[in-house]
Amino acid sequence: MSERAPFLSQAFSAYRHRERPPVDEELSRVGPGTPCGEYLRRFWQPVILASELGQLPRRLRILGEDLVAFRDKSGAVGLLELHCPHRGTSLEFGLIGDKGIRCCYHGWLFGCDGTILETPGEPADSTLKDRLFHGAYPVHEHGGLVFAYMGPPDHTPDFPALDTWDLPGYRQIARAPTVWECNWLQVKENSMDPAHLAFLHTLPGSEGFTEDLADLGEWDWMETPVGMVYIDTRRQADRVWVRVADFILPNIHQFPPNLDPMAQRNSINRPMATTWAVPLDDTHTMQIGYYRAPEGKEFRQGAGFGQDASRPYAERQRIPGDYDAQTSIHGGVARHGLEHLASTDRGVIMMRNLIRHGIRAVKNGEDLGYPILQNGAPLPTYGHDRVVSGIAPASTPEADRELLREVARQVVSGTIASGFADG
Amino acid sequence: MSERAPFLSQAFSAYRHRERPPVDEELSRVGPGTPCGEYLRRFWQPVILASELGQLPRRLRILGEDLVAFRDKSGAVGLLELHCPHRGTSLEFGLIGDKGIRCCYHGWLFGCDGTILETPGEPADSTLKDRLFHGAYPVHEHGGLVFAYMGPPDHTPDFPALDTWDLPGYRQIARAPTVWECNWLQVKENSMDPAHLAFLHTLPGSEGFTEDLADLGEWDWMETPVGMVYIDTRRQADRVWVRVADFILPNIHQFPPNLDPMAQRNSINRPMATTWAVPLDDTHTMQIGYYRAPEGKEFRQGAGFGQDASRPYAERQRIPGDYDAQTSIHGGVARHGLEHLASTDRGVIMMRNLIRHGIRAVKNGEDLGYPILQNGAPLPTYGHDRVVSGIAPASTPEADRELLREVARQVVSGTIASGFADG
Amino acid sequence: MSERAPFLSQAFSAYRHRERPPVDEELSRVGPGTPCGEYLRRFWQPVILASELGQLPRRLRILGEDLVAFRDKSGAVGLLELHCPHRGTSLEFGLIGDKGIRCCYHGWLFGCDGTILETPGEPADSTLKDRLFHGAYPVHEHGGLVFAYMGPPDHTPDFPALDTWDLPGYRQIARAPTVWECNWLQVKENSMDPAHLAFLHTLPGSEGFTEDLADLGEWDWMETPVGMVYIDTRRQADRVWVRVADFILPNIHQFPPNLDPMAQRNSINRPMATTWAVPLDDTHTMQIGYYRAPEGKEFRQGAGFGQDASRPYAERQRIPGDYDAQTSIHGGVARHGLEHLASTDRGVIMMRNLIRHGIRAVKNGEDLGYPILQNGAPLPTYGHDRVVSGIAPASTPEADRELLREVARQVVSGTIASGFADG
Repeated sequence: MSERAPFLSQAFSAYRHRERPPVDEELSRVGPGTPCGEYLRRFWQPVILASELGQLPRRLRILGEDLVAFRDKSGAVGLLELHCPHRGTSLEFGLIGDKGIRCCYHGWLFGCDGTILETPGEPADSTLKDRLFHGAYPVHEHGGLVFAYMGPPDHTPDFPALDTWDLPGYRQIARAPTVWECNWLQVKENSMDPAHLAFLHTLPGSEGFTEDLADLGEWDWMETPVGMVYIDTRRQADRVWVRVADFILPNIHQFPPNLDPMAQRNSINRPMATTWAVPLDDTHTMQIGYYRAPEGKEFRQGAGFGQDASRPYAERQRIPGDYDAQTSIHGGVARHGLEHLASTDRGVIMMRNLIRHGIRAVKNGEDLGYPILQNGAPLPTYGHDRVVSGIAPASTPEADRELLREVARQVVSGTIASGFADG
Repeated sequence: MSERAPFLSQAFSAYRHRERPPVDEELSRVGPGTPCGEYLRRFWQPVILASELGQLPRRLRILGEDLVAFRDKSGAVGLLELHCPHRGTSLEFGLIGDKGIRCCYHGWLFGCDGTILETPGEPADSTLKDRLFHGAYPVHEHGGLVFAYMGPPDHTPDFPALDTWDLPGYRQIARAPTVWECNWLQVKENSMDPAHLAFLHTLPGSEGFTEDLADLGEWDWMETPVGMVYIDTRRQADRVWVRVADFILPNIHQFPPNLDPMAQRNSINRPMATTWAVPLDDTHTMQIGYYRAPEGKEFRQGAGFGQDASRPYAERQRIPGDYDAQTSIHGGVARHGLEHLASTDRGVIMMRNLIRHGIRAVKNGEDLGYPILQNGAPLPTYGHDRVVSGIAPASTPEADRELLREVARQVVSGTIASGFADG
Repeated sequence: MSERAPFLSQAFSAYRHRERPPVDEELSRVGPGTPCGEYLRRFWQPVILASELGQLPRRLRILGEDLVAFRDKSGAVGLLELHCPHRGTSLEFGLIGDKGIRCCYHGWLFGCDGTILETPGEPADSTLKDRLFHGAYPVHEHGGLVFAYMGPPDHTPDFPALDTWDLPGYRQIARAPTVWECNWLQVKENSMDPAHLAFLHTLPGSEGFTEDLADLGEWDWMETPVGMVYIDTRRQADRVWVRVADFILPNIHQFPPNLDPMAQRNSINRPMATTWAVPLDDTHTMQIGYYRAPEGKEFRQGAGFGQDASRPYAERQRIPGDYDAQTSIHGGVARHGLEHLASTDRGVIMMRNLIRHGIRAVKNGEDLGYPILQNGAPLPTYGHDRVVSGIAPASTPEADRELLREVARQVVSGTIASGFADG
């Protein structure tokens, strides 16, 4: 099978597309032992809202693995393999105890770290429970989310924090997760694709984005110490509006606000959301993370327009949203051999290269080299939104576009060099 | 695996049926690159009712391919590959424009022939849209149906017309398609199987067929210039009723009326329906085509008794219809190695041979040789129903049966030689 | 792929479980030609309630085979291959006749033994129906159940009867079957697992078992002439309560009553149920059989608490039952390489060995050697429940446990040697 479909150079030539090129196994597969799956496992991943852990265990599927999450009556959170190590009964039917969770079938009791606390049917002198552990993953609660580390224990990174998680003047909440029926990569690529804002998000009837974004901006992309940013730049008289969105390896993005009209921007706005695209398996992806609002402002409510499958089909056809545009790509898992990437896709290409680089580093036993893996002070991120005044237009439209890009790159370079000053 | 299941020659011997023989790959598979799929693609196929193309695009699956059909605001009809050639978003979420359809994600605009009319995010000097085409198939509207040609462009046949499409004294309408959950071949074989009329269609409670058909007729089959016919012949005193049904290669059939009692037949009745069995994929088949009625008579309404899956299971069990009898064959795709064909199946065998001959001609790069591929005057077809008077019974039942068959073959031979005279 | 998952000997080591071990092909697969499928086919199996055979045919799936069951108007019961041998139409749409069942499509008529009684469209001198048979299996009705023998005809065993089927002082009824969405083996293993009674069946809110069973018993297992038993033994003052449950090869079990408090036991109670776990296919299992009640007592009603999938998910999580514990094992088909069997699983191990021994005997063409295959007097079985008085406690708890097991084994040995005396 060819890696790429033929390039069609004539009208009425669909017949030449005989074969579907394969999916990109390296970037798309997330199960245990797959290259991308092993890469993603090197990072702490949010797996559930802390508030979803109540009286009953929660069955989860994360990175193709079946798991059970629960909070025992002491308040500790456990994330265990779904099936009891004794005879395999699902612990979604387990009984949450003072410490750990007990299998309903024969009463074996498991601590949050996988310790087997009791095997009640066994003889008093049995040593089985002292020798055997149930499969567990370490978890960490932060800001209403439960994070897990599912990678090799000897590579466990410190739990990181982003500088946006405790911004002065902002409040932050955990958002209810939504499940997207497609591969994680096409969801994440959308975050470095400013062009779709000018189409998908400003369709008549679409909600959630300012009209200013309907005009094409000057688009650019730059690598950062934690990943990359896209820069979406527009002029209004002698002011230049620079909109910077983060992609933080391996699967996080941060957007500035979408709703304020340009006229109101007279200070730096930091991101309104931090969002992980956590693969449940190769064809289901959970969007989960934080919403953020300046003090005194309302939080965004719900998943947002077109961010889930809940609308009737005909309405999704009339006013499609992100969910429709992204999940429908090649029926759920992109086949890159059918794509024709263009200049607006430079960010997509840069992102794939960054991810592929990380995947191969893990595969080759090399250092990932990303600061997200080190603890201490919060990691700086670069998403924000600002207006630069006093930039007179250049002499020609083409020269002005170059000027806008230059202003924008200086904004980002300055931010990378010095971090954010107040206001 | 053996091609044929063992022939059971004893009571209680189901145990000897250990393996399921394979499906006939040559006749049953319809996707791109399969022998039968390539054969069927050499013919114009109806894909949707013209009236189904409204304000929203229509997602279709035809011959195993995912497509989108639409009528743009200029009135032109497009049939394109479902997934945008840029990043793969489904065009079922596209916006129908004055010309063509626009992908919702980044706004690329595609003409009905696959021309890329706009790539709005790309630089003004980009030549991509002049070099690249989106996959399109040519379409042709006729009588309320949209036909497509999905074969190799350099073999595109003229659009054919059948002599039944504009019959004096008849009106014709396009019929709403029904989807049958089974392979196309078993649906089509039914059209050359007069024996089932005497059983399935005259079960108590069954509707739509005259009681005369409950008596076994003299059954015969003949090849015609466009395919074949079955002939179902019965005597009433000195009159001989000859009922001729067309199979027109590769997947069309035409039946005379089913409802008029023999006593009323004193002139030639031409077919009341022209029906295509269009494979959606290997296990789903769309029946679509035309209904026809003599002026002043009503059209048949709806799909007809037992022609779809809409009835409750117990009712389908009590009074099964065509849908139940055909779709249930071997669970959806016939396995010929489990069949025991008999004398009533001579038409099925003849049909398979005709189709196989065409499949192999395409495979070997030979001329199909069927007039359906040439344009100009409408193609003659042979389905009709007539009563021949003044044929006294022969001396013995056996001789009379031979006489009936002889009369019938003369009727068909005469029709093939001379076409239809009026009334 | 490794047969066994790694033994986890540390906390937080789920990452070491990279691969899922395979299913046990020898014990789990039941289709035609599989080792276990061929073994199970050597025994008469109940396939449907006699009362389910009414005016319409019943489509069945048994051991991976699609079948149709019906009772013709003469009262005879047929169990035939589902698909008509002529063209393959499903006989679930067939017409039940005075003798046999007629295919709806072309009217071929099949007797209950597979004889083809009529091929109405064929010439009068056709010999096809005299030479060809439709696939049929022999059936036997007993006590409201229809049994079938689906093995090789030259090994057809006599129809057996168990001594429990006609017990003096008891009435017996056939029970409505329930379908469990999992492999047959994990359902059957449960029958030789007394430990789960002390957990699953005495959870708060669980119904159907006496509280006495919440205390751990002394558990033991012994082979019998027809399979094996588990023995669940408890002391109350100087009385010893011995509870014996049968597993009868290949897939039958019998339990004593679950509800009577120990205080009431002053005579022998024979099993309240005889239950087959009949594989429909590899992932669906039908529990079917008999309920039994002492004269004057009520029959158990319905499937019983937690014995089907009918309860809401959250309720199944709060108070899980047998259905939840067993069907959830490894998602439906146990993977023994993920298990960690312990002392309570000695019965499971013994059962697997007995079944594996039978499977290999069939595979090697050897004699099965089980009395269930011979006719004549009913087969003795050993399940019962009795209280032995006058057994003073031993000097230490450990010695007393040994004493209990000794008493219990003598009870079973005595029963095997002599059968059951009255009262």
